[in-house]
Amino acid sequence: MDREDILSMLQERQYKELKEVLENTHPVDIAEILEEVKDKQIVLIFRLLEKDKAAETFTEMNNDMREILINALTDSELEEVMDEMYLDDTVDILEEMPANVVKRLLMVTDEEKRKQINTLLNYPEDSVGSIMNVEYIAFHKEMTVEEAIMKIRQIGLNRETIYTCYVTEQRKLIGVVSLRELLTTGDNHTIEEIMETNMLHVHTHDDQEEAVNIINKYGLIALPVVDKEMRMVGIVTVDDAMDVLQEETTEDMNMMAGIVVPNEDTYFETSIWSHAKSRFPWLLFLMLSATLSGLALGHFEAALIAMPILNTFVPMLTGTGGNCGSQSSTLIIRGLATDEVEFRDIFKILIKELCVATLVGLMLAVVNGIRIVLMYQNPVLALTLGITLICTVILAKTIGCVLPLIAKKCRLDPALMAAPLITTLVDTGTILIYFTIATHIFKI
Amino acid sequence: MDREDILSMLQERQYKELKEVLENTHPVDIAEILEEVKDKQIVLIFRLLEKDKAAETFTEMNNDMREILINALTDSELEEVMDEMYLDDTVDILEEMPANVVKRLLMVTDEEKRKQINTLLNYPEDSVGSIMNVEYIAFHKEMTVEEAIMKIRQIGLNRETIYTCYVTEQRKLIGVVSLRELLTTGDNHTIEEIMETNMLHVHTHDDQEEAVNIINKYGLIALPVVDKEMRMVGIVTVDDAMDVLQEETTEDMNMMAGIVVPNEDTYFETSIWSHAKSRFPWLLFLMLSATLSGLALGHFEAALIAMPILNTFVPMLTGTGGNCGSQSSTLIIRGLATDEVEFRDIFKILIKELCVATLVGLMLAVVNGIRIVLMYQNPVLALTLGITLICTVILAKTIGCVLPLIAKKCRLDPALMAAPLITTLVDTGTILIYFTIATHIFKI
Repeated sequence: MDREDILSMLQERQYKELKEVLENTHPVDIAEILEEVKDKQIVLIFRLLEKDKAAETFTEMNNDMREILINALTDSELEEVMDEMYLDDTVDILEEMPANVVKRLLMVTDEEKRKQINTLLNYPEDSVGSIMNVEYIAFHKEMTVEEAIMKIRQIGLNRETIYTCYVTEQRKLIGVVSLRELLTTGDNHTIEEIMETNMLHVHTHDDQEEAVNIINKYGLIALPVVDKEMRMVGIVTVDDAMDVLQEETTEDMNMMAGIVVPNEDTYFETSIWSHAKSRFPWLLFLMLSATLSGLALGHFEAALIAMPILNTFVPMLTGTGGNCGSQSSTLIIRGLATDEVEFRDIFKILIKELCVATLVGLMLAVVNGIRIVLMYQNPVLALTLGITLICTVILAKTIGCVLPLIAKKCRLDPALMAAPLITTLVDTGTILIYFTIATHIFKI
Repeated sequence: MDREDILSMLQERQYKELKEVLENTHPVDIAEILEEVKDKQIVLIFRLLEKDKAAETFTEMNNDMREILINALTDSELEEVMDEMYLDDTVDILEEMPANVVKRLLMVTDEEKRKQINTLLNYPEDSVGSIMNVEYIAFHKEMTVEEAIMKIRQIGLNRETIYTCYVTEQRKLIGVVSLRELLTTGDNHTIEEIMETNMLHVHTHDDQEEAVNIINKYGLIALPVVDKEMRMVGIVTVDDAMDVLQEETTEDMNMMAGIVVPNEDTYFETSIWSHAKSRFPWLLFLMLSATLSGLALGHFEAALIAMPILNTFVPMLTGTGGNCGSQSSTLIIRGLATDEVEFRDIFKILIKELCVATLVGLMLAVVNGIRIVLMYQNPVLALTLGITLICTVILAKTIGCVLPLIAKKCRLDPALMAAPLITTLVDTGTILIYFTIATHIFKI
């Protein structure tokens, strides 16, 4: 379990003891330990692992370590790993490997498996097909519970999940039976009697989020995947769903912060250069579009020279506007992601946001008004700022809730319409509102 | 399945047909349909459901509907629902109900179950104890595989998950056996031979996120929960883990947008008033703290009057700073949430962010420089803005990555240190940097 122990065992060549320790260590943890040892040692340790554990560990590693191993291992060793790995994991790995490595890996896999891999590789990224597992247990509806259980006991070990089984007829999915159902029913019933016939399912080309949301909403362990003809082609398991959920969330958050999402690497795995590349585009776009608010300010230069104090409140107003906007957009973007909000709710939402905005705007205006009167003894100024604040909050919350919904409608990712963009828009609006009101009230 | 059909069946009193339709409808969907019908109809439909389905539907409803039912149902009806519900769900519901309702519900539950409920209710919110399920299957290590399978087949139906079973000795957890392992091993082996002894587990008082991360990291279906003496007290199942994951993410996102997270209600369930209440505090705080940047601006009034054009670039500079800051903070906050980043990495991160910042800052400075020269034929101004941009980006990214890490270290939620707060801080810094540089270069 502990990295230090393992390293010392390595130094002292206590391979036998090390082998034992590794047997009781979870592949996920082994992968983590390997991350911290030298390349040579990676290979050394990896060779001490039992077949199945080696495969699982390989699945858990990051790409750099995989390449080290692939280059170091013999064909027969690689072949063993490939045989033991689940097909969906194999595909995930291949998708991230350079062409020459992929070639080598496919060389050592047998004909039939290679075919399956290639079909899986052809599913569009983020489609259900690209995350599904093609290994599952299928029954005929005529089988008895006893026969079904026997079948599981014979072939169960090689299936990623045996806890939900599927009933097929000429390869078409006609029912689902949970292992629990099987075990708690009399031996002599037929599958047909106990199978659930109106079962949830997704299609190979559906978006992976679709599958994840269903698994999450109905608390499933696995979800069957079918093709256009309702032929059973695979399953999506809850553990894969959870990973997708995490990735999608990270993607959303990055996008909301104006980071172009390139890969699924962790913060540290991503190089400085690609960090910069992923952050620059939005910053550039926003910097240039911020010129707008600058021009707006310039437009009121006269007013500013006549009454310089007005300028000191610009950051407060734009800041508040920006924050109001990102509050609304975040709520809506998240609501869309969790299926709690839909485009058709747009008017319900708009009305709600307008009410909230008015309420919040009033409260802010009052507090700020008191502050201004105390600091500057200038009630007119307080009034000007108050009116501006209310208008700003309403503007910001409207933009903040409408843009993500429209994006969704246009099949764009709502997360694109997040804080940075909205802030830039609101800034300009705020400045225009502010000075228009000010110039009128103060007759500048 | 379809709401309209069900409503029309209701109108036409086709209860027999309706009953059949409901039998083939998933509780989750029934709950959704009930959300859209009148109170009377809720009770009517609910009474048509079979015992177990009624309980599951009850679990899936929102609180308002539950109260309607609880007030409408007879004690014996309620009793049936309570009997059928899983204990952890019961507790979740009770936690959200008003005292008088809780009293009524506890009245109709039997002594022994009430005891369990009360212990569960006493676990701190967000602790593992508060989300765990106390119903699971436990074996003695002497049992044979055959006996174990028999036991599952007898009692399996009443356990939320039978797919991972636990081996206890004087109530202490000594091993784990997956149902798959059981089924794929010979009948005559003993549990002791096949059980996994160094199993993952959490304690009742650990943070629920802890359990979720483990389930997610190791792809588990259930995780055992033990007390201080390693006595087995319950399990956390993957479906509950997924729900927690979703809630925590929403909480983080809200907090990052400056929304005080009050409840787990959806956007629509939350009233206008509580929406306002949850958004006002941060807006107020940020509005007031934005006065800082205002004062900073006021401080350079002379410079602004001498060279008004400087003012037109303030929004661009502060905007860019804010965006850079939120990019860094988002990456770090997310990294902390997914356990990819820890406080001890602070220097590694700082160096990385500094490099990224310099790179990005340079690129922005160049593009902006070209723009200024073209628009204003003023290279000195371009230089001023360029230097300011680079400093701003570096400042913003430093603050953006350091604050969340420090928050984590101080056991505060890192998400607190998100965009809004950082933007406000960076704004002031940017303005100071900008005008200091400008006043020097232009000798104002």
